[in-house]
Amino acid sequence: MATKRIYSFGGGKADGNKDMKDVLGGKGAGLAEMSNIGIPVPPGFTITTDVCTEYYRAGKKLPRSLEPELRAALRKVEALTGKGFGDAGDPLLVSVRSGARVSMPGMMDTVLNLGLNDRTVEGLAARSGNPRFAWDSYRRFVAMFGDVVLGMKPETKEDRDPFEVILTAKKEAFGAAHDADLPVEALRELVSEFKAEISRRKKVAFPEEPFDQLLAAVGAVFRSWDNDRAIAYRQLNGIPAEWGTAVSVQAMVFGNMGDDSGTGVAFTRNPATGEDEFYGEFLVNAQGEDVVAGIRTPQKIGELQAKWADVSRQLLAAREKLEHHYRDMQDIEFTIERGRLYLLQTRSGKRTGLAAVRIAVEMAEQRLISREDAILRVDAEALNHLLRPVFDEAKKAAAVKEGRLLAKGLPAGPGAASGRLVFFAEDAAAWRAKGEQVVLARHETSPEDIRGMAAAEGFLTAFGGMTSHAALVARQMGKVAIVGCDALSFDYHARTMTVTRRAGGDVVLKEGHWISIDGLAGEVIDGRLETRPSEVVEVLVEKTRDARSAPTYQRFAKLLSWADGARRLKVRANADQPDQARVAVAFGAQGIGLCRTEHMFFGEGKIGPMREMIVAATPEERRAALAKLLPLQREDFRGLFVEMAGRPVTIRTLDPPLHEFLPHDEEGMRALAEATGKSVVHVEERIEELAESNPMLGNRGCRLGIAYPEITEMQVRAIFEAAIDAAEAGARVEPEVMIPLVGMAKELDHQAAVVRRVAQEVFAARGRKVRYLVGTMIEVPRGAVTAAEIARTAEFFSFGTNDLTQTTFGLSRDDVGPVLARYLEEEILAVDPFVSIDQDGVGALMRLGVAGGRATRPELKIGICGEHGGDPASVGFCHRLGLDYVSCSPYRLPIARLAAAQAALREAREAASKRRAGANGKRAREGRIARDAKAARNGKTRDVAVASPAKKRGGRRAQVRA
Amino acid sequence: MATKRIYSFGGGKADGNKDMKDVLGGKGAGLAEMSNIGIPVPPGFTITTDVCTEYYRAGKKLPRSLEPELRAALRKVEALTGKGFGDAGDPLLVSVRSGARVSMPGMMDTVLNLGLNDRTVEGLAARSGNPRFAWDSYRRFVAMFGDVVLGMKPETKEDRDPFEVILTAKKEAFGAAHDADLPVEALRELVSEFKAEISRRKKVAFPEEPFDQLLAAVGAVFRSWDNDRAIAYRQLNGIPAEWGTAVSVQAMVFGNMGDDSGTGVAFTRNPATGEDEFYGEFLVNAQGEDVVAGIRTPQKIGELQAKWADVSRQLLAAREKLEHHYRDMQDIEFTIERGRLYLLQTRSGKRTGLAAVRIAVEMAEQRLISREDAILRVDAEALNHLLRPVFDEAKKAAAVKEGRLLAKGLPAGPGAASGRLVFFAEDAAAWRAKGEQVVLARHETSPEDIRGMAAAEGFLTAFGGMTSHAALVARQMGKVAIVGCDALSFDYHARTMTVTRRAGGDVVLKEGHWISIDGLAGEVIDGRLETRPSEVVEVLVEKTRDARSAPTYQRFAKLLSWADGARRLKVRANADQPDQARVAVAFGAQGIGLCRTEHMFFGEGKIGPMREMIVAATPEERRAALAKLLPLQREDFRGLFVEMAGRPVTIRTLDPPLHEFLPHDEEGMRALAEATGKSVVHVEERIEELAESNPMLGNRGCRLGIAYPEITEMQVRAIFEAAIDAAEAGARVEPEVMIPLVGMAKELDHQAAVVRRVAQEVFAARGRKVRYLVGTMIEVPRGAVTAAEIARTAEFFSFGTNDLTQTTFGLSRDDVGPVLARYLEEEILAVDPFVSIDQDGVGALMRLGVAGGRATRPELKIGICGEHGGDPASVGFCHRLGLDYVSCSPYRLPIARLAAAQAALREAREAASKRRAGANGKRAREGRIARDAKAARNGKTRDVAVASPAKKRGGRRAQVRA
Repeated sequence: MATKRIYSFGGGKADGNKDMKDVLGGKGAGLAEMSNIGIPVPPGFTITTDVCTEYYRAGKKLPRSLEPELRAALRKVEALTGKGFGDAGDPLLVSVRSGARVSMPGMMDTVLNLGLNDRTVEGLAARSGNPRFAWDSYRRFVAMFGDVVLGMKPETKEDRDPFEVILTAKKEAFGAAHDADLPVEALRELVSEFKAEISRRKKVAFPEEPFDQLLAAVGAVFRSWDNDRAIAYRQLNGIPAEWGTAVSVQAMVFGNMGDDSGTGVAFTRNPATGEDEFYGEFLVNAQGEDVVAGIRTPQKIGELQAKWADVSRQLLAAREKLEHHYRDMQDIEFTIERGRLYLLQTRSGKRTGLAAVRIAVEMAEQRLISREDAILRVDAEALNHLLRPVFDEAKKAAAVKEGRLLAKGLPAGPGAASGRLVFFAEDAAAWRAKGEQVVLARHETSPEDIRGMAAAEGFLTAFGGMTSHAALVARQMGKVAIVGCDALSFDYHARTMTVTRRAGGDVVLKEGHWISIDGLAGEVIDGRLETRPSEVVEVLVEKTRDARSAPTYQRFAKLLSWADGARRLKVRANADQPDQARVAVAFGAQGIGLCRTEHMFFGEGKIGPMREMIVAATPEERRAALAKLLPLQREDFRGLFVEMAGRPVTIRTLDPPLHEFLPHDEEGMRALAEATGKSVVHVEERIEELAESNPMLGNRGCRLGIAYPEITEMQVRAIFEAAIDAAEAGARVEPEVMIPLVGMAKELDHQAAVVRRVAQEVFAARGRKVRYLVGTMIEVPRGAVTAAEIARTAEFFSFGTNDLTQTTFGLSRDDVGPVLARYLEEEILAVDPFVSIDQDGVGALMRLGVAGGRATRPELKIGICGEHGGDPASVGFCHRLGLDYVSCSPYRLPIARLAAAQAALREAREAASKRRAGANGKRAREGRIARDAKAARNGKTRDVAVASPAKKRGGRRAQVRA
Repeated sequence: MATKRIYSFGGGKADGNKDMKDVLGGKGAGLAEMSNIGIPVPPGFTITTDVCTEYYRAGKKLPRSLEPELRAALRKVEALTGKGFGDAGDPLLVSVRSGARVSMPGMMDTVLNLGLNDRTVEGLAARSGNPRFAWDSYRRFVAMFGDVVLGMKPETKEDRDPFEVILTAKKEAFGAAHDADLPVEALRELVSEFKAEISRRKKVAFPEEPFDQLLAAVGAVFRSWDNDRAIAYRQLNGIPAEWGTAVSVQAMVFGNMGDDSGTGVAFTRNPATGEDEFYGEFLVNAQGEDVVAGIRTPQKIGELQAKWADVSRQLLAAREKLEHHYRDMQDIEFTIERGRLYLLQTRSGKRTGLAAVRIAVEMAEQRLISREDAILRVDAEALNHLLRPVFDEAKKAAAVKEGRLLAKGLPAGPGAASGRLVFFAEDAAAWRAKGEQVVLARHETSPEDIRGMAAAEGFLTAFGGMTSHAALVARQMGKVAIVGCDALSFDYHARTMTVTRRAGGDVVLKEGHWISIDGLAGEVIDGRLETRPSEVVEVLVEKTRDARSAPTYQRFAKLLSWADGARRLKVRANADQPDQARVAVAFGAQGIGLCRTEHMFFGEGKIGPMREMIVAATPEERRAALAKLLPLQREDFRGLFVEMAGRPVTIRTLDPPLHEFLPHDEEGMRALAEATGKSVVHVEERIEELAESNPMLGNRGCRLGIAYPEITEMQVRAIFEAAIDAAEAGARVEPEVMIPLVGMAKELDHQAAVVRRVAQEVFAARGRKVRYLVGTMIEVPRGAVTAAEIARTAEFFSFGTNDLTQTTFGLSRDDVGPVLARYLEEEILAVDPFVSIDQDGVGALMRLGVAGGRATRPELKIGICGEHGGDPASVGFCHRLGLDYVSCSPYRLPIARLAAAQAALREAREAASKRRAGANGKRAREGRIARDAKAARNGKTRDVAVASPAKKRGGRRAQVRA
C-alpha cells in the first residue's frame, strides 16, 4: 500500500491537520492541529483509518509492512521526548487510543502506560523518584492490557472482574482501605499475581517486549470498533460500519506525579446554556481513574488561577487560541505534569440545542464566524430543544410549596419530563415497549445503558457532572437530564431510591413511582407534573410572552431569519385543522402541504354520517350521508383558507381504506346498525366485505374515489364552496386538490375530471371563480416510474415518502418492528428509513419521478409531504433533488427551515470549491461530495463533533484514560 | 387535418391495402386488398379510425370538413356502379359498417340499405322489378336506422322493441304468419307507421335526405365503439379504448333478389380441426335476417356446385386466390346477386388451437408459408387447447352403454367439460362466483352473454353452426362447446331443458343438473364424467400412447421443434417436487427456475417439525426441529437433481411468513401444543406474536433467513448434501441457491455468506465439491433500483414479477378483486397486470434491474419466475429485455417456447426491416415498434384476426347484416 499510513505530531509541527478527520479520526486530527498551532501536546503519531480497513480485510491481522513504519514513528517520539521505548534507564511510555471520524465516547478501548515491563518499571521508578507511582502504573497497565488486549473479562454475569478479585484480596491482606494505601511491595505482588492469572486463564504469557505490547494493543483497539457497545452506538447515531477507527499512540504524561501535577477537562463556553464563559473542572495529583474511586471531588476551573497562576494563564491562552482557530466551542482535556501543561485533546464540544443556537448567534455577532457559518453550525435537529416543554411554573411552585421538591442536581439536559422510576436500562426499554413513560434513575450511567436511555423520557443520576456520560447522552439525544444529584442513593436489589432531604428525613421511592424532572432548573419533584410550552412556543404559539423579554426566542428568531435568507426550498406544514394551521403559520409555514381530510371525519358529529355513508346499501343512501358531511367539511376547509391567508393549501382527497372508519366490536356494530336503521347482519357483512389481507395495499387512496366518485365529488364541492366563501369574505385562496396513491395516469385522469367538473359546477352556481391546481401524490413506485405520463394531467406532485418507503422496500410500517431491530443490529440498515429517506432506493425513485415529471411539464411544482419532510438529512436531499418545498408537522418547521438553508449553503460552497478546484480536481471533489452526502444522510454527525470527557467518570470504563 | 381521411376501393383497385388495419380497420383493409387483387367486391370507401378519434375529441361531432370528402367518395362509387345516391331513377344504396383494427364481432352497429326514402324506393322497385323487395328493404332500413342511429330501443326491460310491436300488429291485421307473407301494401304502411313512431318517441323526423342519413349513420357507428357490449368485449380481449373503429360505406348487393341470388359464409379450411377442406354454408334468395327467422336451414358449401356451377367455380377460385395471397386460412362472406358473385369480407379466420397448429404446420409443409411464418401464425396461448383434458374413453363408453348419451351436436370447442346446467349468462357468472362449475345451455348465445360465457366451463346450444356466436367465442376463449344440438329445447321460464332422444322419449333436465360435454366428439352426456389427458399429454407425460399413432402430437412436436430452433430465451419450469420436474422435462424445461422450498414443508410428516421449529422457545429447540426437517428436504432436493439430470436447478430459501404454517383454529393450536410439549398459551402467544397487519410486506423472504440463520443453514445443508448424494450416484448437478425478497445488497451479503459457509462445510465433510451459484430474486422495487450493488454479490437474478407487481402498484393480489374489476370496467387498466406484465411500470423497473445488474456483472444470468413466465406477451417482453430465461408452470412450457420463438423472429424481422428502411425511415419505424409492442402487450390480438359470420344467427343483433 503506497498511501501514508502513519502521521506523526509533536514539537510544534505535525504531518496531518484538522481537516483530516476521515483519515486520522477526530482525536488524531485534533492532536496534529494543536501541534501545528503551537499548543503544547505530548508527541506521538496516528495510524490511519485505512489501516483499520486493511486490518479487517486481512481477517483481523495487522499488515506486516506496518512494523518498520511503526518503529520509525516511535523513533521520532523518542527523539522529541529524549526517552527510549523499552529503555530500562528512561523508558518512553505511551497511550494507545481509538479515534473515529466522529466521536464515539467510551465506546472503544484504550491502553495506557504501554511500554512498562519488569525492567522499564525500575527506570520509571528511578527517574520519577517515586517507586510507588511506577509500580502502581505498572499494575494498572497489566490489568488494562489483560482486559482490553487479552480479553480477561468476567466469564459470566455473576463472575467478578478477575483483577478486581485479586486486588480486593490484596487490600484485605495488607489491611488497606483504598488502593492508594497499598505499599510498593503489595503492588509488586499484584503485578506478578495479575500476570499469573492471565497465564492461567488465557494460556499466554504477558508480553514483556514493549513492541509486542504495542502491536497487540493497536490490534485490540481496531477490534474494539466492532464490539457490541460500539455497534449499538453507531446504530443510534447512524455511523457507517465502513468508516473504521484510527489509533493514536502518544507519549504518556502524568497528572499523578505529585502535588505539582493534575488533570482536567473544560469547555471553552458553557455547553448547557451556551454562555461565553470558560467552563470546566480539574483534580490535583490525579489520573482519571482516581476520580472514579469516588474519593475526591473535582474543583471548578476558576480555582486554577489561585492554585497555579501560570498554568491557568497558559490554559486561558490555549482556550482563546483554540476558539479563534477552530472558531467553535471546544471541549479540551489537559494534564499538568510537574507544573507543565499539556493538552491531550481538543474537539468541537457537544452542546444542547439551547447552547448551540446561542453560541452560533453570539459567535456571528462577535464576528468570529459568518452568519452562514452560524447557520451551518447548528444541528438542525437540535432546534427541537428550544421548543421542548417546561413545567408550568405555577404548578411547579405549588408542588414545591406542598413539599414535593425532592432534590436538586445539575441541569444537564433542558426540558421537563415526568415518568415512572426505573433503575435499570433494560427495564427502561421494556417498560417503554409496554407503553410506559419512564425516567431512568441510577447512581451513574455507562455506555452499556445506551439503548435503555433512548427509551427513557429523561435521566437522573446521583453522580457525575456536566461532563458525565448521562449529561453527554442527554445533550446528544435531546433528553431531559439531571446529574450529580448527590441526595440520591440506590438499593438496586430492593429496587428503591432513597432521597436524603435537607429539611426532613429520607424518602424511599419504589420502582414505578412517578417523578418529574426539570432539566433547566435541575429540580427533582415528587409525582407527576404537567408541562407547559417553551419560551419560543410561548412567544410564537401561545402569545403569552413578549418577544422582547425572551432572549432565547430572540436568538432563535435571529438564526431562523438568517436561514430564511439563505434557503431556496419553501417549507409547508402538514395540518388538518384551522388551529394547526395557525401554529404552522407561527412557525413559518409558507403553505399547507398536506391536509388529510380523513382526520376531519373523526371529529365530533362526523364519524356518524361517515359510517352511514360506508354502510349505505345504494348510491342514493350514500349520497344522503355525504350530504350531511358536506357542510362540516366545508367549514373546516374555510377555516384553513382563512388561517392560511392566501398561502397555498393542498388538500388530499380521502385516503385510508373505509374499514378504518368502522367499529370492530359488537357494541359498536350494534350501535351503528341502530343509528343507520340497518340490520346488525348488514353491518357485519359490510365490515367483512371491506376487510383486507393487506390493507396497506388495498382499496384506498384514489381507488376509493374511483369506486365511489360521489365521495370525491362531495369533498371537492366542500373545497370549492369553502374557497369561494373565504374569497367572498375577502381572503385570498389558492386550493390545490391532491389525489392520493396514483400509480397510473388514468387514475389521476379519472379523478381530475371529477375535480374539474365539480369546480365548474360550483363556480357556475356561485358566479365566482378561484385559481386552483389539481395534482397527485407520488407514493407508489409505479407513480415514480411513470411520472412523465402522470404529469400530463398533474399540475403538481407531492412525494408521499412514507408509503413510497413501504412499497419500495416491500416493508410495512406496522410490521417493521422486528425486522428493523434485527437490521439495525446486523448493520444491514444504518438508519431507520421511515425516519430518514433511503436515498439510494426510495431516493432513486424520487429522482426518476422528478425527471419524468419535469420532462413533461418543466414548471411542475414538486414537494414532499411524508414525515421525512422534517428530517434534516431528508430536507437536504430534497434540496439537492430540486424540489420546490418540503412539508412537515408544524413543530418541525424550524428544523426544516434551518436544514433547507444548510443544504443551500453547502451546495453553494461546493459550487465555489468546484470553481476553485477547476476541471483538474474534478474527481477528488466528487468523492468528497459523495462522502458529504453520505455523512449528511447519516444525520446528526455533521458539524457536531466529538465527545466529552464524561467517560472519565463512567465507572468501570473510566480506567481507559489517565 | 391534412391526413387522408377516406380510402376508396372497388373496380379492381383501392387506395388502401391489407397492411392498413390500424387505419382502415380489419374490414376496410380486407375490402381494399380484395379489390386490389381482382376479387369481385362491391365498391365503396372506408373512413379511417383517426376520424373516430377526431369524433370523440370534438365531443362526438363529425368534422364539418369531412362532408366534401364524403361527397367526393360517394361520386366514385356512383361512377363504378352507374347508380346515383338519392337518384330516384336508379338509386345507389349503401351499407355502413364498423370495423376495428381487430375483429369485435357483433359488438358494434351497422346500418344497411341506406339511401332509401319515399322517392328512391320507387326507383328500386322499378329497377329490380320487385316492389315487394323494395318496400321490404325500405321498412327494414327505417327500423334499423331508428334502432341504431336514433336509439329507438325498448325503454324498460319489460318493454318490447317498438317496431316489433307494430310489425306484430300488422301481421295480425293482414293474417300473415311470417314477415314474408306481408303484401306490399302492408309494407308501405309499416314504413309510415315506423316513421310516425320515431317522430312520436324521439321528436325528430326520419331524415329523407340520403346524405343526412349517411352522416347520422357514420356518427352512430362511431358511437357504438363505446357501447356497453363493446367495452365489455375490449376488456375481455385487452383492446385499448384509444384504437377506435373505422367505418366502411359500401354499395349494397342483394342476395334476396330471387332464386338466382343467395348469401353465404365460408372458411378456406376447417376452423375446428384445421383440415384442408373448403368449409361453409349458404342460403338461396336470402338475406342474413331471413336465417334468423329460423324457417330455413343453410346448405353445405359443397352443394353449391350442383346448384350454380359457375358461381361455385368462381368461389373456389377466390378461395385459392385468397389463401395464396394472404397465406392464411380465411373467413369469407359472399353474396350472389342475380347470378353474380360478390365477396363482402375476408379476414383471417378464427380457429381452435388444434386447427391453428394443423393449419400452420400443413401450410409450411405445403410451402405456402415458411416455417418462421408457421411459428408466428399460432397464437401461443392457443397451444393450451392441445393440452386440455378429454373424457376417459372407457368411462365415456360405459356412460353411453348405460344410456346416458343425451344428444349430439357440432363439436365447436375442443376439450371435455362437466358442469351444472344453467340457462342464463347472469346465472353462469353468479354460480361461478359461488364456486360452482357450470355449463351454459341456451337456444343460442349472443354478444350480451359474453361475461357469463367467460364464467362457464363450456357452452351447449340448440341452434347455430360452426360459425355461430357460441362457436366463435368458444374458439376464442378456449372453452369447450357444442352447438347446433337440435335435440334440445328450452323452457327458460321453468328453467328446464328438454332433450328429444332418437331412441326413447324426452328427458327433462332442471337447472343445476350435472351434464358433461365432449367438444371434440360433439356428444352431450348425462351426469358428471371424469376427464383424462389430451393426446399430447398421453404421449409426453403419461407415456400411455405411442407418438407414431398420435397425429396431433406429431404436429405439436414439429411446431415446437421449429420454435426451439428459432428462440434465444431459455425456458425453465417452476417445480417443487420430483414428479413435477419429470413433467417439466417432458414439456421441454431446460432447468428449474423456481423450486419453492416451503411447499415441501406441507408434505406428509413435514408440517409437524416445521411447526415445532416455529414455536421453539430457544435456538436449541429450533435447531432440534430443523434437524428433523433436514433429511426430508434433502431427499426432495436429491429427487429434483436426479430428474433434472444436470440441468440447472434454482432453489429458493424459505419465503412465506412463518404464521402461514401455523394452525389458526383452537383445535389445531391444542394439537400443536400437545405435540410440542408447550402450553396452549405459549402456542397462542407465538401465533399472536407472528400475526401481521400486512403479511405481504412483513417478516418474510430473506428477512426470515436473517432473523433465523439456522433455517437458511438447514436448507442450504440439505441442498448441498443432496447435490453431493446425486453427484455420487453419477448425476451431474448444478444447484443455484436463490435468496428471496432482497431489497438491499447487505441482505443478500448476509445470506450469501451463510450459503457459502455451509457449502464449504458440506464439501469439506464429504470430500467433494459441486459447482453452484448464489443469486437473488428481484421482487421489490428497491431491489430493481439498486441492482448494480446487489449484483456485486448475486451471480444471478430472477425477477419475481408477482410480488414486484404488488409492490410497484401498491396493490395486494389478495385484495385486488374489487379494484381490478372497477379498473377494467373504467378502462383504467387494459389487462390484469397479474396476468400480463405491466410493461410501462413493472417493466420499467425490470429494465433498471437488468441495466444495473449487467453494469456490475456483464455476464449476469437473469430470468423471471413469476407467473408471467407463461404469458406470451410477457415472454415477448422478457426477450426484448434481454433476459436469459423464463420460468413457468410445466403445462405452460410449450406456450413459453413458442412465444419465445415468436419474440425472436419478430425482433429479427424488425431488425431486417430497419436495415431496409435505413436511417431515413427511423422515426416511422419507432412508431411502429411502439405500436407493435403495445399490441403484443394487449395479448391475443396478434396474428389472429377478425370475427366469423356467426352474428348472422345471433338473434336480434343479426339484423345488422345482409
